Amino acid sequence: MDRTEQSDSDTGPPPTLGVGMVGHAFMGAAHSQGWRTAARVFDLPLRPVLAAIAGRDRTAVHAAAARHGWAAAETDWRALVARDDVQLVDICAPGDLHAEIAVAALEAGKHVLCEKPLANTVAEAETMSAAADRARTRGQVAMTGFNYRRVPAVAHARRLIAEGRLGALRHLRFSYLQDWLVDPAAPLTWRLLREHAGSGALGDLGAHIVDLAQHLSGELLTGVSALTETFVRERPLPHDSTAARGYGTVTVDDAALFNGRLASGALASFEATRMATGRKNALRFEINGEHGSLAFDLERLNELSFHDHTEPAASAGFRRILVTEPDHPYLRAWWPPGHALGYEHTFTHQARDLIEAIAHGTPPEPSFADGLQVQRVLAAVEESARKNAVHTPVPTQSAQPVPVQPAPAPAPVQP
Amino acid sequence: MDRTEQSDSDTGPPPTLGVGMVGHAFMGAAHSQGWRTAARVFDLPLRPVLAAIAGRDRTAVHAAAARHGWAAAETDWRALVARDDVQLVDICAPGDLHAEIAVAALEAGKHVLCEKPLANTVAEAETMSAAADRARTRGQVAMTGFNYRRVPAVAHARRLIAEGRLGALRHLRFSYLQDWLVDPAAPLTWRLLREHAGSGALGDLGAHIVDLAQHLSGELLTGVSALTETFVRERPLPHDSTAARGYGTVTVDDAALFNGRLASGALASFEATRMATGRKNALRFEINGEHGSLAFDLERLNELSFHDHTEPAASAGFRRILVTEPDHPYLRAWWPPGHALGYEHTFTHQARDLIEAIAHGTPPEPSFADGLQVQRVLAAVEESARKNAVHTPVPTQSAQPVPVQPAPAPAPVQP
Amino acid sequence: MDRTEQSDSDTGPPPTLGVGMVGHAFMGAAHSQGWRTAARVFDLPLRPVLAAIAGRDRTAVHAAAARHGWAAAETDWRALVARDDVQLVDICAPGDLHAEIAVAALEAGKHVLCEKPLANTVAEAETMSAAADRARTRGQVAMTGFNYRRVPAVAHARRLIAEGRLGALRHLRFSYLQDWLVDPAAPLTWRLLREHAGSGALGDLGAHIVDLAQHLSGELLTGVSALTETFVRERPLPHDSTAARGYGTVTVDDAALFNGRLASGALASFEATRMATGRKNALRFEINGEHGSLAFDLERLNELSFHDHTEPAASAGFRRILVTEPDHPYLRAWWPPGHALGYEHTFTHQARDLIEAIAHGTPPEPSFADGLQVQRVLAAVEESARKNAVHTPVPTQSAQPVPVQPAPAPAPVQP
Amino acid sequence: MDRTEQSDSDTGPPPTLGVGMVGHAFMGAAHSQGWRTAARVFDLPLRPVLAAIAGRDRTAVHAAAARHGWAAAETDWRALVARDDVQLVDICAPGDLHAEIAVAALEAGKHVLCEKPLANTVAEAETMSAAADRARTRGQVAMTGFNYRRVPAVAHARRLIAEGRLGALRHLRFSYLQDWLVDPAAPLTWRLLREHAGSGALGDLGAHIVDLAQHLSGELLTGVSALTETFVRERPLPHDSTAARGYGTVTVDDAALFNGRLASGALASFEATRMATGRKNALRFEINGEHGSLAFDLERLNELSFHDHTEPAASAGFRRILVTEPDHPYLRAWWPPGHALGYEHTFTHQARDLIEAIAHGTPPEPSFADGLQVQRVLAAVEESARKNAVHTPVPTQSAQPVPVQPAPAPAPVQP
Repeated sequence: MDRTEQSDSDTGPPPTLGVGMVGHAFMGAAHSQGWRTAARVFDLPLRPVLAAIAGRDRTAVHAAAARHGWAAAETDWRALVARDDVQLVDICAPGDLHAEIAVAALEAGKHVLCEKPLANTVAEAETMSAAADRARTRGQVAMTGFNYRRVPAVAHARRLIAEGRLGALRHLRFSYLQDWLVDPAAPLTWRLLREHAGSGALGDLGAHIVDLAQHLSGELLTGVSALTETFVRERPLPHDSTAARGYGTVTVDDAALFNGRLASGALASFEATRMATGRKNALRFEINGEHGSLAFDLERLNELSFHDHTEPAASAGFRRILVTEPDHPYLRAWWPPGHALGYEHTFTHQARDLIEAIAHGTPPEPSFADGLQVQRVLAAVEESARKNAVHTPVPTQSAQPVPVQPAPAPAPVQP
Repeated sequence: MDRTEQSDSDTGPPPTLGVGMVGHAFMGAAHSQGWRTAARVFDLPLRPVLAAIAGRDRTAVHAAAARHGWAAAETDWRALVARDDVQLVDICAPGDLHAEIAVAALEAGKHVLCEKPLANTVAEAETMSAAADRARTRGQVAMTGFNYRRVPAVAHARRLIAEGRLGALRHLRFSYLQDWLVDPAAPLTWRLLREHAGSGALGDLGAHIVDLAQHLSGELLTGVSALTETFVRERPLPHDSTAARGYGTVTVDDAALFNGRLASGALASFEATRMATGRKNALRFEINGEHGSLAFDLERLNELSFHDHTEPAASAGFRRILVTEPDHPYLRAWWPPGHALGYEHTFTHQARDLIEAIAHGTPPEPSFADGLQVQRVLAAVEESARKNAVHTPVPTQSAQPVPVQPAPAPAPVQP
Repeated sequence: MDRTEQSDSDTGPPPTLGVGMVGHAFMGAAHSQGWRTAARVFDLPLRPVLAAIAGRDRTAVHAAAARHGWAAAETDWRALVARDDVQLVDICAPGDLHAEIAVAALEAGKHVLCEKPLANTVAEAETMSAAADRARTRGQVAMTGFNYRRVPAVAHARRLIAEGRLGALRHLRFSYLQDWLVDPAAPLTWRLLREHAGSGALGDLGAHIVDLAQHLSGELLTGVSALTETFVRERPLPHDSTAARGYGTVTVDDAALFNGRLASGALASFEATRMATGRKNALRFEINGEHGSLAFDLERLNELSFHDHTEPAASAGFRRILVTEPDHPYLRAWWPPGHALGYEHTFTHQARDLIEAIAHGTPPEPSFADGLQVQRVLAAVEESARKNAVHTPVPTQSAQPVPVQPAPAPAPVQP
Repeated sequence: MDRTEQSDSDTGPPPTLGVGMVGHAFMGAAHSQGWRTAARVFDLPLRPVLAAIAGRDRTAVHAAAARHGWAAAETDWRALVARDDVQLVDICAPGDLHAEIAVAALEAGKHVLCEKPLANTVAEAETMSAAADRARTRGQVAMTGFNYRRVPAVAHARRLIAEGRLGALRHLRFSYLQDWLVDPAAPLTWRLLREHAGSGALGDLGAHIVDLAQHLSGELLTGVSALTETFVRERPLPHDSTAARGYGTVTVDDAALFNGRLASGALASFEATRMATGRKNALRFEINGEHGSLAFDLERLNELSFHDHTEPAASAGFRRILVTEPDHPYLRAWWPPGHALGYEHTFTHQARDLIEAIAHGTPPEPSFADGLQVQRVLAAVEESARKNAVHTPVPTQSAQPVPVQPAPAPAPVQP
C-alpha cells in the first residue's frame, strides 16, 4: 500500500490554477461542478483548485463553500480578487457587477471568466473588452461564459457547418423558450429589474441564441427588427418576514422577438421568452443551407438532427445523431456511446477549454470582444423595439472604450 | 337481386349539387378527390356531382376529366360558369384569374369556392368580397379555400382554445417550411412570377399560416414587421422543345419572415419559405397561453400536441393526441381510432362543410371577407419589407369596393 | 363543349373489371374507398367497377351500397358470386366464411381477394390454397389481403432490405398494439368468439406482423415459442332491445407474445394485443442487420426510420424518411412531397397491384399460399402456447389439401 | 477572510464514510463521479471520502487514483478490504470476483455495494445473499448496483405505478439494445467469456431490465420462456504486442429474448442484445395497465412518457414529462426545470441512497436478496434456452446457502 502518486512519475503532477468565484446561486453551483469535474475527466495542463468563493451574506457564502467544496469564503469580491491563491476570477454575480469585478480582476493580473451577458450595457462591455485587450498583452485570458457553445451536439454542429456539409446558409431559426414567468405570482426578483439585470429574457436567454447563431454560422448579424413585450407588469415583491407583501413593477421584457440578416444575406429569426408555457429550457435552432440542415433542442441536449440534402431524395431525412461517440467533440474522455451527458458539463467543458487557453496562451473563445458584440446586438434589439421595429443596424466598429488605469503585471500561473 | 336503393325509402335520395371546377393541376386533383369522397363518408344534405371541369388545353382537360371522373370538360371557364348543371364553381386556377372568375360566377348565381390566397392584390380581393356580399343576399355562398382549417387536429386545436384550455394567449409561432426551391435548377414556373402568383412563399404558404393564426386565436393581427428575400434570382425557363434553354428572373419572394401582435397583445411570429432544406410540408405552429399550449406539424397531421399547465408540474408534459377518435372533429364518419387520414381529406372536409353551408344557408367559413383580411395582412407584410421592416398596421376598415354590375337571381339548388 | 372522352383517343378506355364485395363493415368501407380511388390515381390496365355488394341484412346492405357507391346489393353471397357482372370477389366477411366463399368464387371462375387472416384454421387455408392453385392454371388470381405490405414506407423498407442496405439480418421486432379491449365493458362481438374469428389478437393483428416479418426479410419463420392470454374473460353481450343484458365468455386471446427464428438464424419477436392502453393502431417494427436498421410505426405511416451503419459513427443516426417522394413506392402518382397519405390507400394500392396481376397474368403477392403459411405460423403459436411455450416448428411442407370438385372455366375479363 | 466552515456551526460537519473501490474501468470511473458528487448536491448524514482504490496493474491503478481522486491505491483487493479507513467496499470488478470480494468485505465488517449482476451463478449469489443476511444483523448494509432504479424518470414511473395511476398491469415490454458487437472485428474481451462474465447480453443488460420490471411492478416473474443466440462466434483476441493476432471463441450470448408472466398474470417480454445496429444504450420499457401506460428510453433519460387513460379519449395521449421538476425524485437538489441530468448521476443517487441506508439502518434497495432473485431469473432464462424455450419456473424459495465462516464485528462508521 502506498499513497497515490498524482501523475506519471516522470513528469510530475500538472501545476495548479487557483480559481476564485464570485456568486454562489444557480450559476455558482453549476460552475463549481464544472471546476470540480474537469480534471477528473480530461488531461489538463493545469489542475484547477477551488481556492475561494465570494458572496455578500456571510452565512450563505460559508454554506456554499462547504457544499461546493471551496477552500475559503470571502464576503467582499475585492478580497477574493486580491488573494494570492487566486489566478482566475470566475464571475457569477448579477450583470450590474460584471464590469467592475472583471476590470478589477484583469487589472489585478488575473484571468477572468465572466458569465453572460457580458454586461448590462454596451458601454460597460466596451470597458471590459478594452481591459481584456490590455490584459491580453500581459498574457491574461478573458472569456465570456456562453457555455452552450460547449454542448457536444452544438460543437458538432459547428464542425459540420465548418466542413461545408450545409453549404451556403439560407435560414437560421433560434428560439429559447422557458415558462417560469407564466405564473403571475412568480416574485419580482433581481432578474426582473432593469437596474440589476439590464434586460429580461433578451439578455438572459436572447444573448445565448445570438451568440450561438453567430458562432455556428461564423458570421455576424448586420441588423435587427424587433418586438419586445412584458405581459405581467406587476409582480409580488420577494418573500420576506413582513406579513403584508407588496407589489412592484417589472422593468424588463418577458419576451423578445427579432429578425435579422447575417453578412452573407441569410435570414435569421430569434425568440427569447420566459412565457412559453410547457417549455422548460427549450433552446432550439434549425439551420438550413444549400446542402443540408441541422436542428437542435437543449431539452434533448445529447442529440443533433442532421439532414444531408446530397443524399438521394428517397433515402434522405433528418437523422438523429446521438452525440455520444468518441469522435464527437469532448466525448472521447467520457462514457461509452449512448450514455448521456448532463447540462452541467457545458461548464466542465468550458473549464477545460479555458484552462487550455491559459496554459497555451491561445485566445479564448468566446472572448470579451465576442461578448461585447452580442451586447451590441442586444442594444440594437432594444432600439428597434423602441422605434416601431424598424431595421436597426448592429455597429461593427467598436466605440471608443472608456479609458481605464494601467494594470499591474499579471500573476504568474502557479507551478 | 335488385338495384341499389340510393337512400332510406322514406326520404328519397338527397338533391344534387353540380360542381364545376376551373383548373386541373395539383389542386384540381386534390379537390376532385374531396368532391368524390365527401358523400361516401358523410351524410350530406346535397350530393355533389362532378359536373364539369375547365382548362385551356383541350387534350389536358379531357385527360383530367377522365382521370378524375368529371362528366364534362370545357376549354373556357366562361362556358363552365354558364352551364346549367353547375351550381357551384370551384376555382383552382392561378391567382391572377381568381377575381374575374369568382365575380363572374357569383354574378351568374353560382356558389363559389376559391383557392387561397383569395387574390393577387387587395383591390381584387375587395372586389371579390363585395361580390360575395351581394351574392349572399341572394342566398349564394362564397368560401375561401383555406383547407388546413379542416385538418381534424387543427379543428380540435380551435375547439380546445375556444373552450379556454389555453387561457389568454401569449405567443403564437407559425411557420410553413418547404424546400422545393433549394435546387437552383428548379424552373421558373408561374408560381415564381409576380404577375401570375402575386407573391411567392408569402401568398402560397404565408396566407395559410396567417389565416390559421387568426382562425385559431379568434383575433386579428393588428400590424406586422417583415423581411422578405429571394435567394435565387435567376432560374431556367420551364422546359420546352428548344435546345437552348434560357434563364429568367424570379419576381417573387423565396421566403418571408414577419412578427406582429394580435388585438389582445399576444405576440405572433411567422415564417414562410420554400428554401428550408429537408422540410417538405412543415406547416407548424405552437401556441402558448396562460393555462396551456398546443403544437402541430402538418408533416404529422394526425397528431396534436397539448400541454395542460393546470396539471401538477410533476405529471405535466406535452401529450401527443392522436386525432383519430370519434369525438374529434370530422372523425366519427371515418375509420376506427389510430387509422390515419391523409392530406387530401382536408378537401373532403371542406366539401362537406361548404355543402352544409349551402344547404342550410349558413355563412361559410372562411368567407371571402376572411380571405380579403388575409390579403391585407400580406400587403402589410410586403409594405413593411419595403420600408425597412417598420411596423405596418393592417387596416381593419374595408376600403371602398370597386362597383360591379348587379347580378341575376341565383340558380336554385337543383333537386 | 363536349362530353368527356374517357381516355386517349387512340387506345380507347381500358376494359372494366367488375368487383363484387362480400361484407360491408369497417373493411367493406375501406375496400370501397380503395376500389373507387385506384383508377383516379393510377393508370390501370383494367378499370374497376363497383358492381355489387353482399350482406345478410337487407336494409343494411342497401344502405351500404348507396353510401359506398356499389351499383347493386345482394343478401346472399352466392348470388353475388353468380353475377355475370362480377369478375372479382372481394371477401370482407368474418373469417369463418372465408373458405366457403373463396372456394365457391374460384370455382365459379372469379378472381378473389380475401381479407386476412386467410382462414380460421390451417385445414381451411389449405383447401383455399389448393383451390387457388387450380384456379391459377385457368388464369385466375387469388390474393390474401395483407394490405400493410402496401404502405409506401413498408414497401420502401422491403426495397432497402432487398438492395442489401441492412446486410444479414439479426433481429426483427414486430408488435401490433391496440387498446380497444382495455375497457371491460366492451361487448362480446364476433371478433371475441373462436367459432367466428378463429383466434383473437393473434389472427387479427398477429397475422399482419407475421406476414410483414416474412415479407420484409424474404425468409420464413422456422418455429415459435408462445404465450397467450385472455385478461377479461367475461364480457357483456352486444346491445339489443332486451333490458337485461347478459354476459358471455370470451373464447379467444386478448394478447399473444411469441419469439422465433428465421431460416437464416435471425431472431424475431412478436406481440399482438388489444390491451395496450393508449396505443391505437401501433403496428411497429424494428429490423437490425449487419449494415443498418429500419424502424416503422403505423401510427406515423408516412415515415420510415433508417440507420445506415456504414456511415462514420459521428454522423450516423436513425433518419426519418418522409415517404412521400416520387421515387418512393406508389408515390409518383400521388401528391407533392410532404403531403401525407392515409390508411385507406393501402387498399387503393392493393387494388392497383391486384388489377395489374390480373391484367398481366402475374402471380399475386401475397398469394393464398402465403396466407396459408401465415396460418401455419398462427397454428404453431397456439400449439406452443398450449404446450408451455415449448419451441414448436412451423411445417414447411404443405399438408395434403382437402380435395375439391373441379371448377368451370374462368370468366373472361369483361372488355 | 477565513477558512471555510464545513457546516452549520451548531451541528458540526457530518461524519465521514471511507469508501474503497475495487476496479477502475468504465464502472470505476462512473462510481468515482458518483461518490465525488453526492455530498456536493445532497445533504447527507455521512460524507463519503474516496479512501482507496484497488486494481491489479500497479501503474494503471495509480493513474486511476490520480485521475479520479482516490487518496490511495492498492494492487490487491484484500489489502483494500483490510484498510481501517475503508468502511464501505464498492465492487466494480468482473463478475467472477464478486462473490469472493463481497463475502470477504462483509465478513470484515464492511458495508458493500456490488455491481450487477450480483454474481455469475446462482450459487455464488446465494452465498453472497446469505453473507449479507448475517451482516445485516451486525448493522451492515449490502446493496446491489442496479443503478437504473435511480434514473429520476424511472423512480417517478415507480411512484406513478405505486399511486395506482396505471391500475392492474397487463403488459410489460422491456428491451435493452446496444450495438457494440455488430462489428465482427470487435475483440474478445473478458465480457465475451463465460468464465469471467457469467453470461453475455443476458447478464450485462438483461439483469437490468429484469430488475426494473420487477421493481416497477412490485411483482416477481414466475417463469420464463427464452431464446439466446451468439451471432459472431469467433472474434479476434484483444490486441497485444505480438504481430500475429489470433482468434478465440465467444462463450456467451450476443442476445437473449424471453417472455414470462408476473405473479398477477401480467405478460412481460424482454430482449437484451449487443447487436441492435444503431441503438447505443436503448434501455426501453413500456408498461400498460388498466388505467394508463408508461414508456421510457434511456437514450432520453430525462423524459418519461405517460398516458392517462382516465382522461376523455379526445384529449388523451402519451405526454412527455420532462423529469426535471423539483417534485420529481432526486430533483429538488439539482438544477432548475429543463436542465438535463446525465447518466452518471444514477451513481450519485445510488451513493446518496446507500449512505442514507447506512446512516439510518434501513434495509438497502436493491438488496443482495434482490440481486439473487434476478440471478435466478437469469438462470431460468438459460435453462429455458437450453430446453427448447419451454416455460421454466423461477424458484421462489432460496436454495440452501453455502455455509461460510462467521465474521468479525462490523467496523463502526467513522465519526
